[in-house]
Amino acid sequence: MFETAELGRTIRKAEFKRLAPILRQELLELQDTLHKNKRFPVILVFAGVDGGGKGETVSLLNAWMDPRWLITRAYDDDGDGDWNRPEFWKYWRDLPPRGRIGMFLSAWYSRPMLDRVYEKTDDATFANQLERIVGFERALARDGALILKFWMHLSRDAQEHRLTNLENDPLTAARVTKRDWEHWRIYDRFIEAAEQLVSRTNRGIAPWTVVEGTDPNYRAVTVSTLLRDAVARRLEEEPSGNNQGAPAAKKKSKGTKNKHRQAAASAAASKATAYEAARSITVLSGLDMSQRLEKERYKERLIDLQARLHRLHLAAKSRNVASVLLFEGPDAAGKGGAIRRINEALDARNYQVHGFSAPTEEERARHYLWRFWRRIPRAGHVTIFDRSWYGRVLVERVEGFASEDEWRRAYAEINDFEEQLNENNTVLVKYWIHITEDEQLARFKLREKTPYKRWKLTDEDWRNRDRWDDYEEAVNDMVQYTSTSAAPWTLVEGNDKRFARIRVLETYCLRLEKALGEPAE
Amino acid sequence: MFETAELGRTIRKAEFKRLAPILRQELLELQDTLHKNKRFPVILVFAGVDGGGKGETVSLLNAWMDPRWLITRAYDDDGDGDWNRPEFWKYWRDLPPRGRIGMFLSAWYSRPMLDRVYEKTDDATFANQLERIVGFERALARDGALILKFWMHLSRDAQEHRLTNLENDPLTAARVTKRDWEHWRIYDRFIEAAEQLVSRTNRGIAPWTVVEGTDPNYRAVTVSTLLRDAVARRLEEEPSGNNQGAPAAKKKSKGTKNKHRQAAASAAASKATAYEAARSITVLSGLDMSQRLEKERYKERLIDLQARLHRLHLAAKSRNVASVLLFEGPDAAGKGGAIRRINEALDARNYQVHGFSAPTEEERARHYLWRFWRRIPRAGHVTIFDRSWYGRVLVERVEGFASEDEWRRAYAEINDFEEQLNENNTVLVKYWIHITEDEQLARFKLREKTPYKRWKLTDEDWRNRDRWDDYEEAVNDMVQYTSTSAAPWTLVEGNDKRFARIRVLETYCLRLEKALGEPAE
Repeated sequence: MFETAELGRTIRKAEFKRLAPILRQELLELQDTLHKNKRFPVILVFAGVDGGGKGETVSLLNAWMDPRWLITRAYDDDGDGDWNRPEFWKYWRDLPPRGRIGMFLSAWYSRPMLDRVYEKTDDATFANQLERIVGFERALARDGALILKFWMHLSRDAQEHRLTNLENDPLTAARVTKRDWEHWRIYDRFIEAAEQLVSRTNRGIAPWTVVEGTDPNYRAVTVSTLLRDAVARRLEEEPSGNNQGAPAAKKKSKGTKNKHRQAAASAAASKATAYEAARSITVLSGLDMSQRLEKERYKERLIDLQARLHRLHLAAKSRNVASVLLFEGPDAAGKGGAIRRINEALDARNYQVHGFSAPTEEERARHYLWRFWRRIPRAGHVTIFDRSWYGRVLVERVEGFASEDEWRRAYAEINDFEEQLNENNTVLVKYWIHITEDEQLARFKLREKTPYKRWKLTDEDWRNRDRWDDYEEAVNDMVQYTSTSAAPWTLVEGNDKRFARIRVLETYCLRLEKALGEPAE
Repeated sequence: MFETAELGRTIRKAEFKRLAPILRQELLELQDTLHKNKRFPVILVFAGVDGGGKGETVSLLNAWMDPRWLITRAYDDDGDGDWNRPEFWKYWRDLPPRGRIGMFLSAWYSRPMLDRVYEKTDDATFANQLERIVGFERALARDGALILKFWMHLSRDAQEHRLTNLENDPLTAARVTKRDWEHWRIYDRFIEAAEQLVSRTNRGIAPWTVVEGTDPNYRAVTVSTLLRDAVARRLEEEPSGNNQGAPAAKKKSKGTKNKHRQAAASAAASKATAYEAARSITVLSGLDMSQRLEKERYKERLIDLQARLHRLHLAAKSRNVASVLLFEGPDAAGKGGAIRRINEALDARNYQVHGFSAPTEEERARHYLWRFWRRIPRAGHVTIFDRSWYGRVLVERVEGFASEDEWRRAYAEINDFEEQLNENNTVLVKYWIHITEDEQLARFKLREKTPYKRWKLTDEDWRNRDRWDDYEEAVNDMVQYTSTSAAPWTLVEGNDKRFARIRVLETYCLRLEKALGEPAE
């Protein structure tokens, strides 16, 4: 989940200096419109890793915007400070009215998170607490609130680095507490709980954005750009019946409409910026696509791994451990070849391969997950999906077959589906086999020349190449929202088929060994 | 919650014979339209108390409708029958396609319910399982499914009676199992879990209807009328972008529109029937409004109860137990008088009375619960709400100030709010003080004549009388969805003010004693 926030995204100082006054002006104008038409409140939540820049970002927004219409709240470990009212009393008390922006630091996420990390609560209780939060945010969102949540992330090393830097600077040394270091020492537990927290409370009506917290410029620009765009978009929408404040606002909305149109236009103008450039760095940019494996070495490794997989496969079968393997990737990435190398090691009575393209009529008549649910393996069996339910957030998103609302809610639906597989003694391995644009072109050309491969190449394959960047963004979001410690994505460098096949086999062996509690060989 | 399904609602045989063919014809026509335009699937869930008529109702619907487009599913305790796939695999497998109706007996509600009743799971796990169900139903509903859930209820005595009757008839004796009687013996535990189950999974997109299961005619007519109305309403709606099956259906929709208009019209024709008459019996009809208390007896009881309350109040204060008392009821029901009798027994430093009418500008700028949340008492204190958050589902519903969507979702929001009060060591007492229409008229006339009471009477009070039946229906629904064992409604017969005041005081004393663990006096 947090891989997407460890990519080294930065914005240089000069660029930031150019951008900041533009963003600032845009935010002020939107804030003014928001305040004047009083149609909805804005609720911003900042949470995440200590040192990820929650406080700095909030301070910056306070400096950039008009503080009269801003409410900022952080909450201490309250003890009896709130006279023993229910915890949410203080959050309700502090809610911004329509027309204002409220910024909440950790707030309702703090206690469930810390209780879980310090093992004061179990998983079920944690889940219930998160469900209460969902109910709270849903009630506010349905009443018209615009809710944006930012999870400020740092890698373990980046956190250590940042805490040390803060301590070394006399101006900031006091901000680092014992507790910050304590949290750093239990970083892995923290991240595991954070993954649960973000995925369970990431709803369309109150989405999380995971923000890479290392570079102050990048995180400031990210947060303010997202805030600007979300407010501008909502102001553009017609007031709905849900907003009690709407009648008063309706009269004014025409007068102010031009103004926020302007803001939106200037927003568009400042969009093609360093921020976009920073965002074009995705989880796929981090892959070393030059990796290769020599033929001799490949043959040895292949035989070893297939033998190892065969043994593990029999052990899994006898212990009723099922496997679901799914393969995604660009056309011609080599999914089929990798799948065959796995099949060779399995007992043919115990596995099934399902390829998926456009749904049939029977399938279209039901929920998109139906065709996958019905094919999941029984205990001890293996099912391999050549393309999968991730089509919803890849091809269907990029080609517009699914509406934004549909593909956005699919992340939660998919996480829920995979959680059930996971609970049911199923090893779930998700592969994205990646190739570069050039490599794909070379393979397409080869297919054209090779008679027995020509059928594999369609006009659609060529068309898809025009959308390469859109697919890359979709993959990045997919990894952000669906790569969890229980069901991680494996990104495979696929320019060299031999290298990719070995990575695929090895990953499956390792996951099986972990599930069976066997020592890695 | 289930008070509303113990009212003795029945439909006589002759009336049923008249109604049945009409309903049947309507259902068949709707089913035909549904099948032809294939826009959405219908999912019906039947659950509830053993003997409540789940099976019979499903059989009847199977007999009434076209079985080719019906899917009926009941699930055994599966053991290994499903080859150890995740539990929801079979529910996904059995989902009806767009255009068909699927009827599910207990299904996904069965295991969480039984595990909780037999204490195999704790509250947190139960809540999580219910949350998974909400996620499942939400995914289907967002994909276009029309979901209706019927909870067939019987009182403990009615269940015993019904099981005995079934056993005594050789034709049905085999249907009564040991387990049915076992469930009957743990009726109270069953009902407590049922309350949780219904309130946590009662969402706008998949609502529960609690059906009184005693009379077969009544329950058959109730279920089929609700099914008919919901399908007709949905067919009237324009196909939304969410329905993947929509393109094919669009062409046809005009051709079939007249047909289901007809069905809707004939639905309207059969509406003013015995069914409506049966439904006009509400929780308020059951009250014995003739109850009176003599003046002398009242004085004695008042002094006793106020002294008892005073003692309890001090004990609660010292033990940090807070109280929230709320009063609802028709105008002139005597809420103010009852509140004064409580106040007399409390320490003035420890209680607050808040009256609520139309929200102020500050309050309108926020979620409707905000003005109540901010006034909840600190530990050991008492807050009395003269009118309350229930305005949302009473006056705002009846007068149309809140949309149907808004007041329907309010039940869950209110339950969530009250659950938090409850968890926080707060005694919550909810009074509906009831008076009859005649009594209200008499009181209004008295107010007109009495100079110092005239200010209490407004034109609005007179107007509200025209909506008496609407209010009564709203009260019935309110009790159905928000009276829980932790936060029950107390319905007070208020035609005699003395009787009402004593009931109010006594109820509060009993609730405090229970909370403080003191023996009832």
